[in-house]
Amino acid sequence: MPAPILTLTTDFGLSDHYVGAMKGVILGICPDAEIVDITHQVSPYAIGEGAFTIAQAYRYFPPRTVHVVVVDPGVGSGRRPIVVEAAERLFVGPDNGVFGMIFAREEHTVRLIQNRQYFREPVSHTFHGRDIFAPVAAHLAAGVAPSRIGEILKDYVRPPFEIPRQTSVQTWVGEILKVDRFGNVITNFLAADFPALAELTVGQAKARRLLRSYTEAPEGELAVIAGSSGYLEVSLNRRSAAEKIGCRAGDVCEIRVGPPGTAGGPH
Amino acid sequence: MPAPILTLTTDFGLSDHYVGAMKGVILGICPDAEIVDITHQVSPYAIGEGAFTIAQAYRYFPPRTVHVVVVDPGVGSGRRPIVVEAAERLFVGPDNGVFGMIFAREEHTVRLIQNRQYFREPVSHTFHGRDIFAPVAAHLAAGVAPSRIGEILKDYVRPPFEIPRQTSVQTWVGEILKVDRFGNVITNFLAADFPALAELTVGQAKARRLLRSYTEAPEGELAVIAGSSGYLEVSLNRRSAAEKIGCRAGDVCEIRVGPPGTAGGPH
Amino acid sequence: MPAPILTLTTDFGLSDHYVGAMKGVILGICPDAEIVDITHQVSPYAIGEGAFTIAQAYRYFPPRTVHVVVVDPGVGSGRRPIVVEAAERLFVGPDNGVFGMIFAREEHTVRLIQNRQYFREPVSHTFHGRDIFAPVAAHLAAGVAPSRIGEILKDYVRPPFEIPRQTSVQTWVGEILKVDRFGNVITNFLAADFPALAELTVGQAKARRLLRSYTEAPEGELAVIAGSSGYLEVSLNRRSAAEKIGCRAGDVCEIRVGPPGTAGGPH
Repeated sequence: MPAPILTLTTDFGLSDHYVGAMKGVILGICPDAEIVDITHQVSPYAIGEGAFTIAQAYRYFPPRTVHVVVVDPGVGSGRRPIVVEAAERLFVGPDNGVFGMIFAREEHTVRLIQNRQYFREPVSHTFHGRDIFAPVAAHLAAGVAPSRIGEILKDYVRPPFEIPRQTSVQTWVGEILKVDRFGNVITNFLAADFPALAELTVGQAKARRLLRSYTEAPEGELAVIAGSSGYLEVSLNRRSAAEKIGCRAGDVCEIRVGPPGTAGGPH
Repeated sequence: MPAPILTLTTDFGLSDHYVGAMKGVILGICPDAEIVDITHQVSPYAIGEGAFTIAQAYRYFPPRTVHVVVVDPGVGSGRRPIVVEAAERLFVGPDNGVFGMIFAREEHTVRLIQNRQYFREPVSHTFHGRDIFAPVAAHLAAGVAPSRIGEILKDYVRPPFEIPRQTSVQTWVGEILKVDRFGNVITNFLAADFPALAELTVGQAKARRLLRSYTEAPEGELAVIAGSSGYLEVSLNRRSAAEKIGCRAGDVCEIRVGPPGTAGGPH
Repeated sequence: MPAPILTLTTDFGLSDHYVGAMKGVILGICPDAEIVDITHQVSPYAIGEGAFTIAQAYRYFPPRTVHVVVVDPGVGSGRRPIVVEAAERLFVGPDNGVFGMIFAREEHTVRLIQNRQYFREPVSHTFHGRDIFAPVAAHLAAGVAPSRIGEILKDYVRPPFEIPRQTSVQTWVGEILKVDRFGNVITNFLAADFPALAELTVGQAKARRLLRSYTEAPEGELAVIAGSSGYLEVSLNRRSAAEKIGCRAGDVCEIRVGPPGTAGGPH
């Protein structure tokens, strides 16, 4: 029986004791948990960035993994804590849209976290990561059934992520989901949906070449790559495309595909 | 029998090989150790910050956890290496005050690390984390008794942390223990000691509202929160209070409580 | 039987989902792997820095550890993936020189990674860390023999790392291998080779004192230390020597030893 896996995705950073406190709580409840950090460097309060990160990572972990996501600007307010069952995995975090990209892709059941028997008491008003999400996730990893945590919730938050909007026969408008460490600009255009790319525009910058890898790009020329996440990315060989363009997550981008009759565009 | 837990708190950062070398040494001695990073981002040489961090984290880990703290500007000088037994946990690090907040809170026994049988040889003059603290901690995690490490030490370093000083019937002066990633300003005023807060002053800034959570604060207004660590924090909803105030760890702060006769002030 | 150890050294940073995805893949293949991060903060594309980091860390881990290094600007081009057997450990990564310092120190066998049975399919053109290196390393950690991964390779990349060049009877020219978090300037002069140091020059700065530890250095004076890595380092007590000098990795440095007849210089 392999150790249960529990991942953490937060905006807590790595300088404070917050992540350590969560891990201590988890190991106190589920001593054989294998805890994996996805990242703790989500920009503070950036729910969309947290949603993108967990959506990019969850499917690489084995079934039964418990994914905890705490990007939670509303902690202590009325926002509800939830457990999501999807893709044979469990997700634990606030009901603020941070699981929106999971909802868009997978059949799912959402439950309200209600059963205080699985909380750490007293519950702080400012650190539900330590007092609600970590202990509930640890109990789930240790084998507690989601049905014991709380009732099924129907009116959970479903943000309108990830759907490029068609603006003419040949054009769609989308947005930048993330700029990664290398300066690759990850759009929300799924590569599989746009096989006949003609041009991808971000701000004043245009990229026309669809390449297979960064190294094929001529020095200093922006190129489009079908990235490892499945989305089209604007990249620069060994340099930051985002810096050259001057763009960041949330900015608008536009794609134009080949003329009608050719392959191209989402189906 | 759950795996022994060993935590690391250092100022080594995450870009060098230092933390990796320590983990390799630990796993060579205690292969089933569960190693947990609290943080490696303590500011270089900042003993007080290290003391705060471990004091905030240790109690969330199960009994028998071995906590290693290496913030050690005096490495290679005469400063002594110690093991502390406190709160059913063990602490390993330099005798420079980094366990001062543990000493202030818990009954404790301090031992000098003497028994070179548990060192990694040759011992570098600049990296006791790898050659003394990691191997000693790993042996402790593997079951070696603290009494085998060395003799009880009486004259260890006890810095005067953490005690606000009363300056009038209604006022106390304290200091900022930490600015966290979100810009929350964590003072050394224990929330339980000051139920009748009238005003908390940091630099030119004053905060008068005692709120339960960040989200209750009106946009742009400084508020006081009873933080998850038990201390009063000055906070700003979804923004950095420290940046607005222009303050940092070590700065002075002042608290004023309600008039005599009302509840308020430490007992 | 202790859990197999697998370490990661990359330039992926800690803000993206890339490291998490690799760990998920590893745990899916080798569920009891103990995964240890050496660092993910190698400067983007900096093969030499990656080579230095793994060379400083590998020997502190127990035999049979699998070390994965992904600093891979050539991903998706013709550069080959390799497995290295050296020092009773295994190394997995690109054939771009990142294992050059291991080659310089240890007897080694290099194999081409060929057997797609151990890949994750489909293989992305931009993320071999996830689709080739992680799964191959996980299979090795789980007990697959290196000979099953691919054939022995003879013409692998061997960069000319790490050899100071003698420029006169008493002088050698070397280079800065790394500036660490504390601002210590780590040269490629092995301390054991230069017992009769007279002067170490970096840019306009000269250091003449060879000290045992940082704390022996007078305030503000540059000193030379025989560092924990075995190399001479230029250091400043509790401050950054690199900042004072204005130097960085890759810069030239020069060493002068005592006059002929005295001990000194590499043998």
